[in-house]
Amino acid sequence: MTTTATPEATLRAAMADWEDALQARDLDRLFSHYAEDAVLYDVKPPFEIRGIAAIRQVWEDCLPCFPEQFAIESENLRFVVGEDVAFLHRLHRFTSPESGHPITTMLLRVTVCFRREGDRWLVVHEHVSLPFDPESGMVVAKP
Amino acid sequence: MTTTATPEATLRAAMADWEDALQARDLDRLFSHYAEDAVLYDVKPPFEIRGIAAIRQVWEDCLPCFPEQFAIESENLRFVVGEDVAFLHRLHRFTSPESGHPITTMLLRVTVCFRREGDRWLVVHEHVSLPFDPESGMVVAKP
Repeated sequence: MTTTATPEATLRAAMADWEDALQARDLDRLFSHYAEDAVLYDVKPPFEIRGIAAIRQVWEDCLPCFPEQFAIESENLRFVVGEDVAFLHRLHRFTSPESGHPITTMLLRVTVCFRREGDRWLVVHEHVSLPFDPESGMVVAKP
Repeated sequence: MTTTATPEATLRAAMADWEDALQARDLDRLFSHYAEDAVLYDVKPPFEIRGIAAIRQVWEDCLPCFPEQFAIESENLRFVVGEDVAFLHRLHRFTSPESGHPITTMLLRVTVCFRREGDRWLVVHEHVSLPFDPESGMVVAKP
């Protein structure tokens, strides 16, 4: 990665590496993209997860439930990239050759916020959710 | 608002005015804080709501269900403010003298992302959610 890359190109490369690291289950590489003080609002409780160590524990606990092979598909991905702060949001679907695996049945809404530190963009906040039906109180997994 | 205010002070003032406009049910003032291309991920379907007119319609539909008087309480509010992009996240509770009103029973997770246009910060993305219990599929309204 050279210093002549635009901030947006650098950020897109970081996100691609994040996805690649997740698919490889390489948590050291995955968490090289996080700031120490990152805060996650995850799809399931607790309401907030504070700090890189606690967020890493979430992935350590949930990755064994993922199918052996999986990929990520995005819809309506948007990057908004400033000088030193940036964010993206997208609709996010896990796909897998294992048809019908529970994680492939949801269309997640994902917001990821970054702070630039030198030439690197670090994740400082993530918000992942599904909407719910106020009448039934049930989560809605897909449109 | 003078140009000598720091970006963070300007952003905090905009958020305070947003809250004040909501409590006053003044949608013109509320939506003066939004960019035309804002995208909302709301607590209830649809999965995404695109554009200022569609987001305004959400508030027009839901404000009649709010108690006559209400306020907003934040927990763990954090601002991350750059030169031209910023975001905040917080746990957000509506309070009201009408005890037990449905909207006061939830602790929402809220992320708001901004782009600076001259001296103004405009909301370009909001993500509001509750987590859910993967066993039951039920939303979890408070910790």
